[in-house]
Amino acid sequence: MSKGLPKRSEDYSLWYNELVKKADLAENSAVRGCMVIKPYGFAIWEKMQAELDKMFKDTGHSNAYFPLLIPKSYLSKEADHVEGFAKECAVVTHYRLKNAEDGSGVVVDPAAKLEEELIVRPTSETVIWSTYKNWIQSYRDLPILVNQWANVMRWEMRTRLFLRTSEFLWQEGHTAHATKREAIAEAEQMHEVYARFAEDFMAVPVVKGVKSESERFAGALETYTIEALMQDGKALQAGTSHFLGQNFAKAFDVKFQSKEGQLEHVWGTSWGVSTRLMGALIMAHSDDEGLVLPPKLAPIQVVIVPIYRKEEELEAIADKVKEIRAALLKKGISVKFDDRDTFKPGFKFAEWELKGVPVRLAMGPRDLANGTVEVARRDTKEKQTYELAGIEDTVENLLNEIQENIFQKALSFRDERITEVSSYDEFKQVLEEKGGFVACYFDGTKETEDKIQDETKASSRCFPVDWKDSEEGPCIITGKPGKKFLFAKAY
Amino acid sequence: MSKGLPKRSEDYSLWYNELVKKADLAENSAVRGCMVIKPYGFAIWEKMQAELDKMFKDTGHSNAYFPLLIPKSYLSKEADHVEGFAKECAVVTHYRLKNAEDGSGVVVDPAAKLEEELIVRPTSETVIWSTYKNWIQSYRDLPILVNQWANVMRWEMRTRLFLRTSEFLWQEGHTAHATKREAIAEAEQMHEVYARFAEDFMAVPVVKGVKSESERFAGALETYTIEALMQDGKALQAGTSHFLGQNFAKAFDVKFQSKEGQLEHVWGTSWGVSTRLMGALIMAHSDDEGLVLPPKLAPIQVVIVPIYRKEEELEAIADKVKEIRAALLKKGISVKFDDRDTFKPGFKFAEWELKGVPVRLAMGPRDLANGTVEVARRDTKEKQTYELAGIEDTVENLLNEIQENIFQKALSFRDERITEVSSYDEFKQVLEEKGGFVACYFDGTKETEDKIQDETKASSRCFPVDWKDSEEGPCIITGKPGKKFLFAKAY
Repeated sequence: MSKGLPKRSEDYSLWYNELVKKADLAENSAVRGCMVIKPYGFAIWEKMQAELDKMFKDTGHSNAYFPLLIPKSYLSKEADHVEGFAKECAVVTHYRLKNAEDGSGVVVDPAAKLEEELIVRPTSETVIWSTYKNWIQSYRDLPILVNQWANVMRWEMRTRLFLRTSEFLWQEGHTAHATKREAIAEAEQMHEVYARFAEDFMAVPVVKGVKSESERFAGALETYTIEALMQDGKALQAGTSHFLGQNFAKAFDVKFQSKEGQLEHVWGTSWGVSTRLMGALIMAHSDDEGLVLPPKLAPIQVVIVPIYRKEEELEAIADKVKEIRAALLKKGISVKFDDRDTFKPGFKFAEWELKGVPVRLAMGPRDLANGTVEVARRDTKEKQTYELAGIEDTVENLLNEIQENIFQKALSFRDERITEVSSYDEFKQVLEEKGGFVACYFDGTKETEDKIQDETKASSRCFPVDWKDSEEGPCIITGKPGKKFLFAKAY
Repeated sequence: MSKGLPKRSEDYSLWYNELVKKADLAENSAVRGCMVIKPYGFAIWEKMQAELDKMFKDTGHSNAYFPLLIPKSYLSKEADHVEGFAKECAVVTHYRLKNAEDGSGVVVDPAAKLEEELIVRPTSETVIWSTYKNWIQSYRDLPILVNQWANVMRWEMRTRLFLRTSEFLWQEGHTAHATKREAIAEAEQMHEVYARFAEDFMAVPVVKGVKSESERFAGALETYTIEALMQDGKALQAGTSHFLGQNFAKAFDVKFQSKEGQLEHVWGTSWGVSTRLMGALIMAHSDDEGLVLPPKLAPIQVVIVPIYRKEEELEAIADKVKEIRAALLKKGISVKFDDRDTFKPGFKFAEWELKGVPVRLAMGPRDLANGTVEVARRDTKEKQTYELAGIEDTVENLLNEIQENIFQKALSFRDERITEVSSYDEFKQVLEEKGGFVACYFDGTKETEDKIQDETKASSRCFPVDWKDSEEGPCIITGKPGKKFLFAKAY
């Protein structure tokens, strides 16, 4: 097949858009900013969901489901929250259509106007905390450790498939605790879970950090973030976990009786990752030939392509493939046998490369005779012929090696692009010439952030939690006391 | 614990509502008609989802995701479809709020009015077929076998938890085929999948049938249904599968080039089950003490309650429970050890009864000394003392027995309540005195259905597919030629 993918080096942005479409991951829909996630893309998301869901349950969380629509007045109850979300939300005002009098179709029925408008949830803190009010009376009711998998809407003006869409899929954890200490521990635990997921499953190295005050979630006292680096040197916020303090408990009057008999406000957290992770996954590893998927998240881990001229040859190969397949499936490895007779091997090779299948086996009559098979790995494009005997172990080891290799490759790339600078001139130079993360002392103010953003298009990403608090020095812009922060151009 | 559940015999409807709330399954939210599905209820739904999803994938389907919002004009493209859904839909008219000038919160920003209103999907045929138009050119692109798990909204005026809510969760399969024969085979296959799921997992016997013309899905040529019977003698439609003919292909101009080179309209199906199944599950089996869950869908299959006075006794019991638990988990049986020290055993027994845990083990110091354990089953409330040795086999067998027993019980109940009648008087008498399904010849017209509905509150349920087509005779109302149909009062 002809891939017709632009090169990353020529137009990274176009390369990404085309790759998402050509690899059958997603496409734009007729509704502005809303995407269709196609079966192959959704299969990757399902694998992500399954792993994350397991990690959430292993840390004591249960799933639940809360309403899609939120009364307008709820949004206003937490001042920062409404400020953060009111300007980009879909508003339901009516609950009925009727036939147009001129017969031109259906129109909104003015008689069916809602007394109070409803907002399609941009996030669910408000509707969830209004529910928690009824669930929590005493310290015995705490903690509440709940997650929901849901769709949310934020009316984005400029959208890009997976990275920024008006509707997206995500999970949002919402927990309630008796003490500040416990709530902070929860927010930090989920921060760690996200980092582990990104690195161990997506093979995407991340910086774990905390956001500056102005970059916090609307309504949070602290926002923990994981920041990944894409191949064009731009950062991508891949997941956030928020310590909400007592903000939503106060807004929705959620109190509990403590062991000591005092009535106190509950402490909260929320945390989420979304289909944006798909964008991170694609941009972190893929190349000019197409997707490169980490084996742990690849819907198809191994594809087997028969090389034959005559029907009998195909039959003989198919018999052998049956055995190989069974041996691989027994190890939990997913396999597709591409025996379509409408396409040539070269076309198939290109298609599975485009779709990022980690390992490809090719087998012809000569292989059959010799008891061998040609094994190609997607990440390095190396090909090698192996003995058929024990091929399941060979493939299993190779999948592990690929998972590790693409992580290490992304890690080297990222580590080479964290640059410490000590002046604003140096900051600008590094940003222009090298990209990636620029580390510098920063006074933490919105004024400084805005100045840097306006002049360089870089935004403050985070203060890495693994750095010592002692990393303090004069802000490169204002000279005021600052902490060492990471800045980058970002998605 | 005091359950405070009404008796089914006194007020079945109130019993249901209270049970849903007290067993922590779901509750009403602040948004009219929208429910909160609580963690325990959601855990049951997750088990249903997992089994159904596996059945869908085993029959060749993949999951995908389509937009929540549908342009108003799409609804109108299929005439019956808009007629069926326009009168009960949530309409998004604006995409922004702004601060009220009087400082009283946020108001809809009139400057952010959408050019075309968007409908929160009541079902996704229109948005999906508008997408399929781009996916389908040739017979090689067919069939498309796609499912999505999603939330949908239908603005219901009278709502009941799980049974009828404005927002509900469901899956909707949407398939596209080259021939009428294939599409009908697909609709029938999914009909069969639903029936198998209901009977094998939910332990709810169902009648497989086809709907009368007026009860078909809006836009379908044939609607296949599974109909269950609740303990109050009312029927519940538990799942439907639709043969759509070429209706949506024509509405959205979806054509393909056949093998023979002809341009033809595509044939379609759609099929769905929803959180309504939760209502069916609850009402089919539960009793005055609470939920009765089939072991295959119970989030907790076995609860172990320690009986002790002194802390040392609890420790000794806990040591033994560790072994039992490990042995049960090894068999894939989920276990909860309820060692809360804030509640007495009697309270715990009542709580787990209310929550429908199929098997309860109770263990005290004497059991420990004797190497025995008391085993209580939820369905029959029988208790028996068993040897601890091999308890995992005992429990495994018991779970299978319970699954089978509650199915057989529901089946007998249902079979006793299918009554054949040969006159309208008899019809009315059976409906009043006995309830359940009433079988009679029916001419299939809306006029007859309406008359019966108005006079008896019974509706036509289905023509059972297992009955011979030869079961024909004069309609009990009009005397015109009819088929033997099932009628019932229904949810």
